Amino acid sequence: MEIKNVLVVDPLKGEFVGDVLWEEGIVRKVTPKGASTFDNILMPGFVDPHTHGCFGIDTMSIDDEKLERWERFLYTQGVTSFIPTTISAKKEDMIRVSNMIEEYVYKKSKTSVVGVHYEGPYININKRGAQNPSAIREATSREMEEILSPHVKLITMAPELKGFYDVLPLLKENGTVVSIGHSDANFEEIRQAFLNGVNRITHFPNALKGFHHRELGGSGAGLYFDFTLEMIVDGIHLDPNFVKLIYRLKGAERISLITDSISAAALEDGEYELGGLKVNVLEGKATLQDGTLAGSTLLFSKAVKNFKKFTDCSLKELAMVSSYNSAMNLNIQKIGRIEEGYLANFVLLDKELNVLETYLYGEKVYQR
Amino acid sequence: MEIKNVLVVDPLKGEFVGDVLWEEGIVRKVTPKGASTFDNILMPGFVDPHTHGCFGIDTMSIDDEKLERWERFLYTQGVTSFIPTTISAKKEDMIRVSNMIEEYVYKKSKTSVVGVHYEGPYININKRGAQNPSAIREATSREMEEILSPHVKLITMAPELKGFYDVLPLLKENGTVVSIGHSDANFEEIRQAFLNGVNRITHFPNALKGFHHRELGGSGAGLYFDFTLEMIVDGIHLDPNFVKLIYRLKGAERISLITDSISAAALEDGEYELGGLKVNVLEGKATLQDGTLAGSTLLFSKAVKNFKKFTDCSLKELAMVSSYNSAMNLNIQKIGRIEEGYLANFVLLDKELNVLETYLYGEKVYQR
Repeated sequence: MEIKNVLVVDPLKGEFVGDVLWEEGIVRKVTPKGASTFDNILMPGFVDPHTHGCFGIDTMSIDDEKLERWERFLYTQGVTSFIPTTISAKKEDMIRVSNMIEEYVYKKSKTSVVGVHYEGPYININKRGAQNPSAIREATSREMEEILSPHVKLITMAPELKGFYDVLPLLKENGTVVSIGHSDANFEEIRQAFLNGVNRITHFPNALKGFHHRELGGSGAGLYFDFTLEMIVDGIHLDPNFVKLIYRLKGAERISLITDSISAAALEDGEYELGGLKVNVLEGKATLQDGTLAGSTLLFSKAVKNFKKFTDCSLKELAMVSSYNSAMNLNIQKIGRIEEGYLANFVLLDKELNVLETYLYGEKVYQR
Repeated sequence: MEIKNVLVVDPLKGEFVGDVLWEEGIVRKVTPKGASTFDNILMPGFVDPHTHGCFGIDTMSIDDEKLERWERFLYTQGVTSFIPTTISAKKEDMIRVSNMIEEYVYKKSKTSVVGVHYEGPYININKRGAQNPSAIREATSREMEEILSPHVKLITMAPELKGFYDVLPLLKENGTVVSIGHSDANFEEIRQAFLNGVNRITHFPNALKGFHHRELGGSGAGLYFDFTLEMIVDGIHLDPNFVKLIYRLKGAERISLITDSISAAALEDGEYELGGLKVNVLEGKATLQDGTLAGSTLLFSKAVKNFKKFTDCSLKELAMVSSYNSAMNLNIQKIGRIEEGYLANFVLLDKELNVLETYLYGEKVYQR
């Protein structure tokens, strides 16, 4: 199959008008042309490594039918890879969700579900955000061995908690990327984690120790060290000027867009639930009763548009923050580029960045 | 006169071994040599635009003899330009100090006293730091006209206060540089001031609204916009990692070292006074009784060594932060470079940055 005369956006080679040819789900040939006019934009399919649900679906109560609906909904957003994300819960619930996802991925030969992201429960109760405090606890090697399997791609933990360094070797061995989040760690504690190979921060700088000139905290450490920073670019969690500042200070290379969306995303305002806590959604803003932000109702294509609008970045940089950086940081193979040998996972956009078509393994899975 | 075979450090041309020749206080010739070995380092004389005193001397109780002693003491620090700085006080006291300094400068043909810096009283009482609250007030055009004279080089004000934009044209007309400080202004208020030509921030980010991802405050605005940032690099006001971070994010071009020193600087620990408030100095740290930092006991040569140590910057960059940037930002003519036509104001340092000799208008005013 072939798409012709589109603006091809590759995070490394940049932007050029050309044709893209693929066979059996793999890109075989990318042909740049001399032309400078084009109608639509072809980018690597988007990657959302941090989403709790959307459209009434919640990771914690997942089944095959819901996962399939979730996948299909995300095609409308241009997402061709996502990692369903749990929140702090009992070990049994984590294992149940994890097994469900594992089986689903094995059953499907082609799926946008990449694995599972455990957000908690090994987080700091003082930075719990909208996580249920009753489920939060310290990590132990014994429990970690029970909940790990090869498809656990990502875990959000607080490095200042007891148990963190006990389980870190297990996580490395398992190929699970550790992301610092819901953490009250100070600058030195974050430095220590960084020096031990931790190179990602969850929804930066939400639920981290704030930036101060005499104690830089997790927020300052995220600026100081070469972390990949997840960011929720909904205009609510972060001021647009903050997004622009981080883009200018750190560069697009260090930013990974996520939605952190909850089941209320793509639905009406109203009352929802997250990990056993009541969540109220008003004008798209999800909060607990005390006003704490409780995930987002952000959709990925909106995050992409927002990032472009807030930062005025190039499309090449937009491809970095929307797919390539996540693929690299999370070691997801063969995605995030439009280049020979990579999966034919694409999103076709108009010039206003509206999603027109989505391709998964070369197959058109969405047409507007 | 001539100095031979030194490492000449110019903030624009960089570092090279050479000879510097001057006549009648003006550099006539700078001759780079092929050599790479040198014993000592010649930098532009240091500039301290923000100092309340030292060695028992306090701007608010200045007289000719004290000013002369202050000058002489600062030669030991390599300082060849400084701006005595008032704190929030009654109008009459400000005028008295200002007139005293003005007369002193006129009487002396060659002096390192450049003018006066009014730090307050038009500042935000909620961000007063160690300024006496009873003297803090809003600016009026009438009062401003009374306290201004051509040698008022610098004024620290809070742009969110009533009166700020009334007096701004008067300050511009007078050639007085406005620096944002002791301010609770939010990001938008700072942006407004920046768009109106204000391009300096006093002892960043001390006594500014803190950095938050949903309201960047004065601290975030200082990172966001192209302000020249005063910094107190004593290792107390700012964590060394913070200094390094700002250096990396903003570049040496945007940083101006100051001491913000009080009369206790270069003296023993003990009890001192600042603007009518009691200050306790313990291990060099000056605080009010409630623990609020009350200026510093930092000496300029120590600030220079600290900056080098904290950031590992080049000597060229060190010349920027220690003289050139202040000269440029405050429009002090003919200083801050080692270049033909510039004043022969130098500091000769050994390789550990200890001050060996200081030259003012070509005259050796200090020898260790």
